[in-house]
Amino acid sequence: MYDRLKGFRDFYPEEMAGRRRAMDAVEASAARYGFREIDTPALERAQMYADKSGDEIVEEMYSFEDKGGRHVAMTPELTPTVARMVVDKGQELSKPIKWVSTRPFWRYEQVQQGRFREFYQTNVDVFGSSAPEADAEVLAVVANAFVDLGLTSEDFEFRVNHRDVLGGLLATFGDDVDTEAGIRAVDKSAKVEPEEYYDLLVDAGLTRDQASQLDDLLKGGDLDEIAAFAGTDRVREGVENLRAILAVTEDFGVREYCTLSLETARGLDYYTGAVFECFDSAGEVSRSIFGGGRYDDLIESFGGQPTPAVGIAPGYATLTLLLQRAGVWPEGEEAISTDYYVLQAGDVREEAARVARALRERDHVVASDVAGRSFGAQMDYADSINAETVVIVGERDLANDEVTIKDMETGDQTQVPVEDFPGDRQRPTYDDFA
Amino acid sequence: MYDRLKGFRDFYPEEMAGRRRAMDAVEASAARYGFREIDTPALERAQMYADKSGDEIVEEMYSFEDKGGRHVAMTPELTPTVARMVVDKGQELSKPIKWVSTRPFWRYEQVQQGRFREFYQTNVDVFGSSAPEADAEVLAVVANAFVDLGLTSEDFEFRVNHRDVLGGLLATFGDDVDTEAGIRAVDKSAKVEPEEYYDLLVDAGLTRDQASQLDDLLKGGDLDEIAAFAGTDRVREGVENLRAILAVTEDFGVREYCTLSLETARGLDYYTGAVFECFDSAGEVSRSIFGGGRYDDLIESFGGQPTPAVGIAPGYATLTLLLQRAGVWPEGEEAISTDYYVLQAGDVREEAARVARALRERDHVVASDVAGRSFGAQMDYADSINAETVVIVGERDLANDEVTIKDMETGDQTQVPVEDFPGDRQRPTYDDFA
Repeated sequence: MYDRLKGFRDFYPEEMAGRRRAMDAVEASAARYGFREIDTPALERAQMYADKSGDEIVEEMYSFEDKGGRHVAMTPELTPTVARMVVDKGQELSKPIKWVSTRPFWRYEQVQQGRFREFYQTNVDVFGSSAPEADAEVLAVVANAFVDLGLTSEDFEFRVNHRDVLGGLLATFGDDVDTEAGIRAVDKSAKVEPEEYYDLLVDAGLTRDQASQLDDLLKGGDLDEIAAFAGTDRVREGVENLRAILAVTEDFGVREYCTLSLETARGLDYYTGAVFECFDSAGEVSRSIFGGGRYDDLIESFGGQPTPAVGIAPGYATLTLLLQRAGVWPEGEEAISTDYYVLQAGDVREEAARVARALRERDHVVASDVAGRSFGAQMDYADSINAETVVIVGERDLANDEVTIKDMETGDQTQVPVEDFPGDRQRPTYDDFA
Repeated sequence: MYDRLKGFRDFYPEEMAGRRRAMDAVEASAARYGFREIDTPALERAQMYADKSGDEIVEEMYSFEDKGGRHVAMTPELTPTVARMVVDKGQELSKPIKWVSTRPFWRYEQVQQGRFREFYQTNVDVFGSSAPEADAEVLAVVANAFVDLGLTSEDFEFRVNHRDVLGGLLATFGDDVDTEAGIRAVDKSAKVEPEEYYDLLVDAGLTRDQASQLDDLLKGGDLDEIAAFAGTDRVREGVENLRAILAVTEDFGVREYCTLSLETARGLDYYTGAVFECFDSAGEVSRSIFGGGRYDDLIESFGGQPTPAVGIAPGYATLTLLLQRAGVWPEGEEAISTDYYVLQAGDVREEAARVARALRERDHVVASDVAGRSFGAQMDYADSINAETVVIVGERDLANDEVTIKDMETGDQTQVPVEDFPGDRQRPTYDDFA
């Protein structure tokens, strides 16, 4: 009767279980590193994005005039909002500020596999540190979470580059070179034909020979050669910083998930140092899974004190594709599980409620009949929600002060004294009474 | 530089910690009853609300035309969306369907204490049962959660009423009575002067004597008297259902949080049976905290099979006021806690990283220096994040293969052998080594 909007998704319990598991893993990892959860508005002044986010994002924004005549936008990304928040309370917050939040964002994009108009991200950001430890820490948070989810270095890699290496190198080709356009060209290099890539570099101000030279240097991936070729402090310091970050990832135990990748550029304009993109190591998910990087100038551009910053933002639409490809996406009983179903046969509500409460007090997932259904219908339902154990509370059993415990996997069942269930047991099953 | 929109909030970590604790308690309670998490879009066709939600909500909607020319609205409530979802997959879903979800909603309202334009709710719904057990279960989910949060029956009460009692009673006053207008009048009775209340009832089609009679009956609260006065099956059955629901809350262990309250009406038009409103028992939070009720006709009105339904939706803006009033809102160390800060003195990153990783593997919250700061600055930071234990990894100690463990509450500290920390201990503190 009413249709769902294109690019928006309904998450029924099975699909939601997988996304919840992934979000919980990232949030739990961030919490272990001392990141604190924040939450932010879904609407902001549209002008903020016009000023800070670049044309591509602004063109895709859900923006409109609210009832108070304000020009507002549904947030297409988090970074401008957190920058605003840091500026608002800058002096009160002890540095470094380490924030994490999971929420939806909205962009009116072309819908395709792994890309929707409403998409969830967890943003993990450190404000107030320019040290390579901060860059490495946000990488470690996500790498640890991915390992917790069952992924290995065969499954994912963080491609790491640096704006001072790529941008610095581009700048050495001449004063007329538009380095931002050059970076955007490199960002597209893997997605377009070589001819088109060279044309983009020429548009950015390089000669055709320089384009070929740049291509060779980036493909070669030799940092010493690049630093020597460029001969500028900017590139030399970028190379040092890049190496320092990779050295810290070693100490943090996540070096194996990081790859130096000089062609990784990231489209966003506000990055100033290291940039990261996460890819499927097996190459089946062809697109970047998500990315991040350092944005040292943004807080100051919002009117705050100069505050170096670095962040990363796993997105769940593409991450889902990766988890599915890697075979670690929960399905069936992994997605929907129930510890106990308390089946009611006859007028036994009081006793059934007592059993269910006792099990819930032990923190188990316990469903029971709330629809006055038959024995068979209840058993089918228990099966449909993957109940592990069914506790049958029946009038006849109760006359003997007993209940029946049924193992749903084997079908075995046994009677046990009512006062013995659950008794002192933390998680009683059929095996405890067999 | 950019201001936050009126009625929208930034949640910094301290405020967020309290809301997270409340949301987790409600979600965990729902999970224990076998409710499954779903997630839903932030935008829907505006027409859905125009058809289903009533004028008040539609007037306050954030609605606009998207880039594809669709007339869309930021969701002002969840119920129409879940009704759409139930209809979309009605036959595939095993009944009863028990869903829970936490998300923001948006209404362009007058901003006041506990009321914002963006607000979070957890919706807890059962579809496919008309039995009183379902009504009682959604009440029990929330009551259990509130007790987990530290609230008692001195703090909150669910006022329970029934549309067939109130609406049925209104209908007995004459065929010309507009029962929906009458219900809305009763809904306002506590907020307006008696004269105005009587005027509203007269507007709904009652005589002045009937208005006074109704007022007496509702205030009296005697269900038998009301059933006898009305003399209709509808009212008699409503009374029976209301009593049955309260009887089930007894078995579910939450009767003490429920009060029969015949003047509780709930504004929404789609309720058909029991209605609930949660109030501050101490009366300091004067407004309804949130509500819920039965809506048996909605799914069918969306084109689905007839599917009885009941739901409740704790909202966190008003719940926060209640938790604060009751003195169970986390502040300071309860809101921001850190198990360990690993302090680095000198060139010790590798060893400090090993210690931090070992503690994180034990699932603790562990912060360490990522900004190259001094000993004193790190100690201040550890204090600011309420670190319980500081592990000082220093060059001098390490020369003797030792680290220093400092209890931040007492200030006591002691040296321990590096290989002994954390060793086999799950959560080592100063006391283990003193």
